[in-house]
Order: sequence, then structure tokens, then C-alpha cells
Amino acid sequence: MTHRFQSVTHEDVAAFRAILGEANVIFADPDRLAPYGTDESGHGHAASPEVVVKPQTAQGVGLVLAHCNRQRIPVTARGAGSGLAGGAIPLFGGVVVSFEKMSSILEIDTENLVAVVEPGVVTNDLCRRVAEHGLFYAGYPMSVESSFIGGNIACNAGGAKVIKYGATAAHVLGLEVVLASGEILQLGGKRRKDSSGYSLLRLMVGSEGTLGLITQATLRLIPQPGPTADLLVPFASTEDAVAAVPRAIMASTSMPSAVEFMDKLSMDHAMAYTGNHIALADEAEAFLIIQIEASSKDMLLDAYRPAGEACMEAGALDVFVADNPWASEKIWSIRRNCLEALRGIDPTVEGGDFVVPSTKIPAMMAFVRELSVAYR
Amino acid sequence: MTHRFQSVTHEDVAAFRAILGEANVIFADPDRLAPYGTDESGHGHAASPEVVVKPQTAQGVGLVLAHCNRQRIPVTARGAGSGLAGGAIPLFGGVVVSFEKMSSILEIDTENLVAVVEPGVVTNDLCRRVAEHGLFYAGYPMSVESSFIGGNIACNAGGAKVIKYGATAAHVLGLEVVLASGEILQLGGKRRKDSSGYSLLRLMVGSEGTLGLITQATLRLIPQPGPTADLLVPFASTEDAVAAVPRAIMASTSMPSAVEFMDKLSMDHAMAYTGNHIALADEAEAFLIIQIEASSKDMLLDAYRPAGEACMEAGALDVFVADNPWASEKIWSIRRNCLEALRGIDPTVEGGDFVVPSTKIPAMMAFVRELSVAYR
Repeated sequence: MTHRFQSVTHEDVAAFRAILGEANVIFADPDRLAPYGTDESGHGHAASPEVVVKPQTAQGVGLVLAHCNRQRIPVTARGAGSGLAGGAIPLFGGVVVSFEKMSSILEIDTENLVAVVEPGVVTNDLCRRVAEHGLFYAGYPMSVESSFIGGNIACNAGGAKVIKYGATAAHVLGLEVVLASGEILQLGGKRRKDSSGYSLLRLMVGSEGTLGLITQATLRLIPQPGPTADLLVPFASTEDAVAAVPRAIMASTSMPSAVEFMDKLSMDHAMAYTGNHIALADEAEAFLIIQIEASSKDMLLDAYRPAGEACMEAGALDVFVADNPWASEKIWSIRRNCLEALRGIDPTVEGGDFVVPSTKIPAMMAFVRELSVAYR
Repeated sequence: MTHRFQSVTHEDVAAFRAILGEANVIFADPDRLAPYGTDESGHGHAASPEVVVKPQTAQGVGLVLAHCNRQRIPVTARGAGSGLAGGAIPLFGGVVVSFEKMSSILEIDTENLVAVVEPGVVTNDLCRRVAEHGLFYAGYPMSVESSFIGGNIACNAGGAKVIKYGATAAHVLGLEVVLASGEILQLGGKRRKDSSGYSLLRLMVGSEGTLGLITQATLRLIPQPGPTADLLVPFASTEDAVAAVPRAIMASTSMPSAVEFMDKLSMDHAMAYTGNHIALADEAEAFLIIQIEASSKDMLLDAYRPAGEACMEAGALDVFVADNPWASEKIWSIRRNCLEALRGIDPTVEGGDFVVPSTKIPAMMAFVRELSVAYR
């Protein structure tokens, strides 16, 4: 495939420097280029870019893309590099467009309840900033401490709260996108509801930079939800855990904000890795984490009790309740650190996601176990 | 444009009858064809189809589309015909594919919390059926009594609850779609979260039959929300009403499930038309309808009081509270019957939607008033 593309020449680099300024172009410096060749999917996957450019405006992005398009130089967009899907890896060399210098929260509009941001904003920084206004950005990925909002949009990140609030796509009202030609498109805007024409906005979300590069996003905000309780629930089998999910959801007065499944192996390693040990039933083989939002602190017990009771009726071995931020963080740090914990044992472990209907989880786990025996 | 298309011949009709059966093809019968030539946007917009076909399977749809594609016969898909956007009007004649005979709820999956439906299901029937299982379909259009779910998806219908739950797109997890070639595509499925590849699913939603015809949909269900209260709030000006919106939302402990704006003219006519008179301040020029969900009957007052108080602080003239289904229906029947009420006065009134950020509503209303004077 690579023969379809051209290598970067000194003339190309000179053009990029003229467009973006000397300081925003990295070339012929392997040590500085190397970090732009990987993501979090594992160090087995890497490919060095020839050039890294760091535009500060959509116009800059447009001029770089138009140049690359004319010269047939491959382009790979990069946010924080926290993805697991390889979207940021410059497989064909060429130019990496890093959005690290487009990191401004341009507007928090408390009348229309939207935020307008550049793609390099760290999602957690956005969450903190809108919280100062009593607002909440619900497209909340698991890698929230480091990932950029542009990357979240480009791969339609899911994350912990997807079951109640939907993946990132549900929260993107508008995008500014630069096409390969350099043309700058405005899609959507500050409107809650917009059904005219094809949803190019929704097509861009999840397209991982292959249809265009995101240079600005208008995001839906909602009022900050009330306090949450997290239930960590051990079960004797995967089947029991999965069968409890709809029962716990139906017992809750509203949709839980998160329902996560973990197997015993991941749980044990992640507890050891984080040092966050929680005394759980020895015979537990599978775990659910269920997060319930209440309208106020007073309502918290009433909010989570029905879900906990439904789990017990469905065969849970116990229900561990975290109803304060410290206990919750203990549970979620275990969940977040699964991959790192497994890498502590075997650094070649690869990260990735796959998705099945919840009723298919037992069959999937059985299949994974078969594979792990076959390829031991 | 019409020269690009062919007219339907007797051979074409014979082919359709061979594919679908005699009873599922209407031809050369103006009285029976005429109802398939309009939607709810107004009788000024109509165009008779040459043939109406009523397939009962995706395979039938595929064979008809493949035939039409070969013969260059234009095809228009039709649900209930309750749209306001003209999507169901066969502007170029040809074939109308009516989904009235594909009206089965195929599955209500209470484990994965999804429904699998054919496109001709009346949305309200779906809502009632899933409610029997304690479930809720949140893509709830204003025309819910008559519209088909396939049409809701094809035009990404918004409706009353869009502010909390999003438009129809937010609730579509999977689609079976027939392309012009006759090929049957399966997009998505019973998965809550799915980010692999371009979202052709989301591109199909809102494409109004121009990219393919929907023959089956997998829909996200959630637990039935608790009881609701509806606030009907009069304001002295459009500006006051709009400024109150974010304050009422922020005062609520969760996102209101609906926030609708109405002007005095529409309100007066709709009250007269429905016979549902509500005593409101004489000096009111603009109205908000705000719907708040509570987790239980006991919590209803606590749930809506902050929103009502926020409206009063923002200059509301009064707050009329409907906290039972009869009073709520009184308010919503007024809202739903606006268009019909205006047609009672002038039958040539056209229906349609346009969408602006809420802060732009005062400027929009002023512009509409200017237009109404200029074109009186």
C-alpha cells in the first residue's frame, strides 16, 4: 500500500514551517518523533511519523492538509494518544497532526447549556470547568484523566456512563471539521435538535480522522447530576452476574449511570496492582459495578437499595456499597487499572475493546476461556 | 428533472404483482392512489404515485427496489404519512413503498432491554406494549398517536422528550436496510455501545429513504420513568420566557424531560380548538411547558417545585401545575393541536419545523412578526 504515498521531502517540511512556524514542526529528530508513533494499545504497535506538526488554528490545519493532499503525503491525526484502536498510529509514516496546542475551552454557554472547545482539551479539564457552573459533560470516557475531547469524538468513545447517557456521539451538537482538501466545514451547532439533511456530523463522529480532522466541537451539557452510589457485587458465575443486570436496572427508579462487568482474574490483578483491596466472597467468579445517581444525599440509600436488593434476589453473594467519593474511587480505580495491572504481569498484553449484547457475555467468556487454553 | 426517470409500465406492474401478490399492488385507481400522495405538511403539497406497493418482507422490498433501479422508476418510502417534511410525497411519481403491512413488534427482549420492530409499527402501540414490561421507548414524537416508527427513524423525529432523551437517533441500536440495488444490509444490533467503522446506522437515520429503506429496527428501551408533572408557565415576553429556560433546568435536580415554547397566538387558538381552556394571565405573551419526572408519586412536588420557583424568580406571571394525567393531557393536547387549530382558521396553513438555539428564539419571533406584517 505504501507505494501509493510519497515520503516527506525537505520542501514539504519548509512548507509546513512556513505555515505553522518553526516551533510547531518536528522533523529529523527520532527521539522527539518516537512518542508520536504509538497509542495505548501496546508497544507492539508503533510506526514513526516522518514529521509532527502542531497547528494552532483550523486555517493552519487546512493549509497542511491541502499541501499533503497535493503531494500525496499520508496524514494521521493525534489527540492524547490514549486510544486503544490504533487510530493515532501513523502506519504509513508521513505527517502526524497533533492537536496538543489547540487546547482551549472557547466558551461555556450557560444559557444554551453548551460548551465550545478545541480538540486538544483534556476531557477531565472540561468536566471540571463546566462543574464550576453546576454543569456536566456526560460523554465521560474511562481514560478521562488524559484523553482529549477531539480523540473521544473521533473514536466515539464510550466509557463508564454510556448505559445512561450514551457514547460521545450523543453529546456532540456541532463540529468544525477540516477536509483533506483543506476546506473547513461547519456541521451542526448550538441546537438541541436538528434533522435537516444527512447527518454528516454523526458520520464524522467515530470516523477516526479518516473523513476529516476535528478542529472545534460544540458539546451538549446537562445539569450536574446528584450524588452517586457504586455497588460492587460478586456472583458465583458469569451467568448469574449477567442475569442480574436487567433485574437491577428495572429495580432502579431510573437508568443506572453505569453497569460494568469484570471477571475474577481481572479483579484480582487490578486489586493487587492498585493496592485497593476489597474483601469479597472467595467463591466469586464475576463482578458487577452498578452506579446509581440520586437527586440528593438524603435520597441516596433509597436510590440504590432496590438495585442492591434485586442483585441479592438474583443470586449475588454480597453487595459492597460505596456511597462516598473515596470508596467510589477505590472501586473505579480497580476498574480503570485492569489493563495496566495485567501488563504488570505480562508487558506484551494488548488492550482493546469488543462489544456484545449483555446476554451474550457468558458465551463470550466461555469462548475466551477456550481460546486461552488453546493458545496457552 | 423528471426526464431522468421512467414511467411505470404494465410490465412493471405485472412484475410487482408477481413479487408481492395482486392484493399488495395498487395501480390505475386514482381514488385509492390519492391518499398516498400527501403528508401532513399541507394539501398544497401532493403528487400522486403511479403505483403503491405494500411489501410484507425485506426480501419483497429488495425485489421491488432492484426492479425499479433497473428500470429507473422513482421510489418513495411511506410510513404513516404524518411527516411535515414532504419525505413521503412521491414528487416524481413512480412507486410508493408503503410499510403499512410490515407492522409487527417482533421481539421485546427484557434481558437486553431492546425491542425489535418492523417499520410500520405505530409508535404509540410500541410505547404501550413495552410499558406492559415496565419499559419505556424514549424516542417519543409529538405525532405519537399515528406515526410509524420507520418514519420516525427515517426523519430522526424529535418530539416532546428530546431535551432529556435526545431525538430518535439516540434510541436506534440496529437497522435492517434495503439498498436501491435490492441488497439487504444489517447495521448495528442489540449492543449498547458500538464504535467500529463509520456509523452507517446514524447516516441512515434521518436520510428519509434516500439512502435505503428501513425494514427492521432494534430499539433501545429504558425502565419506565416515574410520574411526571407538567408546568405551564406564562411570561410577559418571549425574552422573559427564554431567559427562564436555563434557570428552570438548572434548578431541577435532573434534566426536565420536556421544555416547549409557545406564543400567545398559538396558545389562544389551540385552547379554543381543543376546548381545553386554562385561565392564564391576560398580559401573557409567551408560555413555557416544562415537564419534570420524579422517582415516585411522593417525590413529585419536591421534583417540580425548584423549577417552578426558578420560573417565578425569572419573572413568570404564574405557574400552572399539572401533576396528574388528566391535567397533563389538557396541556399537551393544546401543544399537539397547534397546527390543526391554526388550520381551523385558515385551511391553507402549512406545517413545518425550524430549529434555533434557545437564546435565539426572541430574535426569531421578532423576525417572524416582521414577516407576518410584511406579507399580511
